[in-house]
Amino acid sequence: MAESVERLRQRVEELEQELARERIRRSEGDGHCGRTRIQQMSDEVVDSNPYSRLMALKRMGIVSDYERIRTYAVAIVGVGGVGSVTAEMLTRCGIGKLLLFDYDKVELANMNRLFFQPYQAGLSKVHAAEHTLRNINPDVLFEVHNYNITTVEHFEHFMNRIRISYVRGRNGGLEEGQPVDLVLSCVDNFEARMAINTIFLCSPGCPGTHSVDQAGLELRNPPASASQVLGLKACNELGQTWMESGVSENAVSGHIQLLVPGESACFACAPPLVVASNIDEKTLKREGVCAASLPTTMGVVAGILVQNVLKFLLKFGTVSFYLGYNAMQDFFPTMFMKPNPQCDDKNCRKQQEEYKKRAAALPTQEAAPREEAEVVHEDNEWGIELVSEVSEEELKNSSGPVPTLPEGITVAYTVPKKTEDSVSEVTVEDSGESLEDLMAKMKNM
Amino acid sequence: MAESVERLRQRVEELEQELARERIRRSEGDGHCGRTRIQQMSDEVVDSNPYSRLMALKRMGIVSDYERIRTYAVAIVGVGGVGSVTAEMLTRCGIGKLLLFDYDKVELANMNRLFFQPYQAGLSKVHAAEHTLRNINPDVLFEVHNYNITTVEHFEHFMNRIRISYVRGRNGGLEEGQPVDLVLSCVDNFEARMAINTIFLCSPGCPGTHSVDQAGLELRNPPASASQVLGLKACNELGQTWMESGVSENAVSGHIQLLVPGESACFACAPPLVVASNIDEKTLKREGVCAASLPTTMGVVAGILVQNVLKFLLKFGTVSFYLGYNAMQDFFPTMFMKPNPQCDDKNCRKQQEEYKKRAAALPTQEAAPREEAEVVHEDNEWGIELVSEVSEEELKNSSGPVPTLPEGITVAYTVPKKTEDSVSEVTVEDSGESLEDLMAKMKNM
Repeated sequence: MAESVERLRQRVEELEQELARERIRRSEGDGHCGRTRIQQMSDEVVDSNPYSRLMALKRMGIVSDYERIRTYAVAIVGVGGVGSVTAEMLTRCGIGKLLLFDYDKVELANMNRLFFQPYQAGLSKVHAAEHTLRNINPDVLFEVHNYNITTVEHFEHFMNRIRISYVRGRNGGLEEGQPVDLVLSCVDNFEARMAINTIFLCSPGCPGTHSVDQAGLELRNPPASASQVLGLKACNELGQTWMESGVSENAVSGHIQLLVPGESACFACAPPLVVASNIDEKTLKREGVCAASLPTTMGVVAGILVQNVLKFLLKFGTVSFYLGYNAMQDFFPTMFMKPNPQCDDKNCRKQQEEYKKRAAALPTQEAAPREEAEVVHEDNEWGIELVSEVSEEELKNSSGPVPTLPEGITVAYTVPKKTEDSVSEVTVEDSGESLEDLMAKMKNM
Repeated sequence: MAESVERLRQRVEELEQELARERIRRSEGDGHCGRTRIQQMSDEVVDSNPYSRLMALKRMGIVSDYERIRTYAVAIVGVGGVGSVTAEMLTRCGIGKLLLFDYDKVELANMNRLFFQPYQAGLSKVHAAEHTLRNINPDVLFEVHNYNITTVEHFEHFMNRIRISYVRGRNGGLEEGQPVDLVLSCVDNFEARMAINTIFLCSPGCPGTHSVDQAGLELRNPPASASQVLGLKACNELGQTWMESGVSENAVSGHIQLLVPGESACFACAPPLVVASNIDEKTLKREGVCAASLPTTMGVVAGILVQNVLKFLLKFGTVSFYLGYNAMQDFFPTMFMKPNPQCDDKNCRKQQEEYKKRAAALPTQEAAPREEAEVVHEDNEWGIELVSEVSEEELKNSSGPVPTLPEGITVAYTVPKKTEDSVSEVTVEDSGESLEDLMAKMKNM
C-alpha cells in the first residue's frame, strides 16, 4: 500500500518533469544554453570566462582559495522569493552542488519577486528553477525534490539527503557519502504561515498567537515555520550547521541567522528573533490578509544570506550570527545568542556538550565564541543583552519568558507554559497523521 | 557628413536590434511571454494576479496608494551588475516606464552577477534586458538607448530624454512631454574605471590618483565615472533628482546616494563618498587588475537602491541620502551631506539658492532638511561630521581638503589644486574631441 502510493508519487514527479521540459522546449526553442561545461576555474581575464570576476577575489586579497567553492554542497529548503535568488547567486558563484526542496508551483502572483518568469507559471518551482539554473551555469550539480519536508516520509528522505550527499571533489570527480556542508532555510512568508497554521498555531492553546496578541508584540513574522522547526530537529540531531532567513508579512523587514548546533541558540532555546518595526499595529489586519512582498527586501535578504554563506564556506570577513534589515529606517541590527543550557531539545543539549569539548580542545584564542564581544551583559537565562523594543509592561503581560535584546530586534512570540492537550487535536494535513504521531516518529529516528 | 554618420549609427542600431530579436527567437521559440497586459492594478488575492502581493502593501498600512507607481518614469544609466537587477526589480514592481542607457554588450564574463544569461552573450545589454523585462512585465513601457552618454552628441540626446519623456498617466493613457521622475546611475565598476581612465585620471597632473596614493586613502572605488560627472552636470542644470550607486573593485563594499540638487551635496561639492574597508592595502594590486564582482554585493546594492526609489516615489519610510554596505563586517553606515556654498558647479549654486527659496516658502516643520538630525556638528566647509577612518597624518599628506566623515565612510579621493594644463592633453576617445572642447560645449548647452 505504502509502496504503491510512493510509486504514484514518483509517476506524478516524472510527469511534472516531462511537462516542465515540454513547456520549456516550446518557450525556449532548442534549449541552447549558451555555454559549455568548464573543467577547471580559470582566472584568465577574457570576455568568455564566466569565472574571471570571481577568481579576481584572490588577486584582490579577499579570498585565498576561491576554487574551493566547487567542493561544497548546499541544501536550500524553500525556493520562493528568497530561496530562488539564493539558488541563483550560489549557481553564478559556481557552487559545487545545490539540493533544492519545495512543493509549490510557480504562479503569476509570484512575479513581484526576482527569478521566476510568467512563462513558468504552473511548473513546480524546483523543476523550473533547475532548468533556469542549469542554463546559467552547467558546471553546478543539481538535485531537486518536489515535496513538502514536513510530512513524515519526506522528512526522513530529507534527513537522508542532507546527511549523505554527493559532492564534487577537488579533482573534478565525485565524492560519495559526504553530508551537505550547509542547509539554508528560505521558506518564504506565505507558505510558512500556511504550514504554521496547519501544525503550530491552529488551536487556541498552542504556543504563539494568543500571548502575542495580548502583549501587542510582533507577529508579522511567523513564529517559525514547520520547515524551520523540523529543520532544527534535523540539524540538531545531525550536528548540521544551517542558516535561516525570513521576511516579514508587511514586506519591509527581514533577517538572516546562522545556527551552529551547540555553539549558538537554536529555535528551541528561545523564540526566533525578528526585526522590530515601528509600523502602527492598528493599521495591520491580522486575519485573512495576503502577505505583502517586495523584490527589494527579498533580494537584500538573499544577498546578505549568500554573502554570509560565501564568508562561512570560503573563510573571509566576519560571519554574522544574526543580521536584520529594517527597510523603513535602513537599519541593520546584529547580535549573537548563546544556546540555552536548559533547552527543550535534547539534541541541542547534547550538541552543547560536544561543542564545549571541541572548544576546550582548541588553543585558547580559537576557543572563544566568535561574536562574544557583542554580548554586553548576561543577566538572563538566554545569555543575551541590551535594550528591547518591548516595554516592561508588555513583558509582564506575555506568558513566557522574554529575553532582553539589542535595539531593533525582538522575538516573534513568547512561549506560554505548554499543556499536553494543547497540541493533541492538531493534524498534519499532507500525511493525515496527527502532530503527536509525527513528533513521536521524529523522536524515534 | 555628420548626417550620414548618424544614419549609419541608426542602421547599426537597427541591425543589432534585429540580431537580438533573431537570437532571442531561436533561444526562446515563439517568444510566448506567459501573460497578457493588465489595464488596472488589482488587489484581488488570486494566483493569477501578478500585483496581489504589491497591492497588499496598502492593506498592511505601508503604502497609501501603490497604483501611483504606474505614473512614474525612471531612467537607468548603466545596465550592468547593479543596473540590470535595478531594472528587473522596478519592472516587477510595475513601474510606469523605464529608460535604459548602456553601450556595452553581454559577455560570459558577466555571468557571475544576476540577470543576464549565457545565451544572451554578444547582444547589447539594453536590447537583451528589454526583451527579458518585457516578458516579465508587459505592462511597463521601455525605451532603450544603446550608446555612451559621455560622448557629446549622445549627452545632448540623453539630456533631452530625461528632460522630456512619456509617462503613463493615471487614467491608463500617455502624458507627453513630462520629465523623468528619477535618474539612477548604475555604472558598474569596470566600465566606470575605463571611462575615468579615458577622461579623468590618465595624466599625472589630473585630480585623483597621485594624492590618493601618497596618502594611502581609499582608491578601490573610482573617484567618479564620466557618466556620474556628466549625469551630475545634467541633473544640476535640470534640477533633476537622481540616485547614484557604486560597488568597490574588490566586490565587498558598495553604497547608494540620493542627490537632490540644491538640498544635498553634489559630486562637485565634495569628492564622492565610499565605504571604508579594513582590507590590507598591500594585498591589493592597483594596475592592470580585472575588478572582482559578486552577485551578492551587487544584489544588495540594487535592493537598497530600488527600496530607496520606492520609498522616494511612493512616500513611505525614511528615504536615505547615503547608505553604505561593508560586506566584510556587515556594517551599513548612513549619513547626510549638505551642499557646498562654494561649489565649483554654478548650476549647483543656483539650485542651492532655489532650494532655499522653496524651503522658506514651506511651513516650518517641512522646511527642515530630512536627515538634519544625523549632522552632529558642522565645523567644516562641507557641513558634515563625525570621525573618519583616515588618520590626521594622512589628511595632512593629501593635497586637497578632506572632510571628516561618519565611521565607515571615506572619500574616493581628495582634489588637489587644479592647473589649466593638467587636463589639456586628455581626449575623449569616442568622439575624438578633447576634454576642453567637451566641457566648453557642455557649458554652452
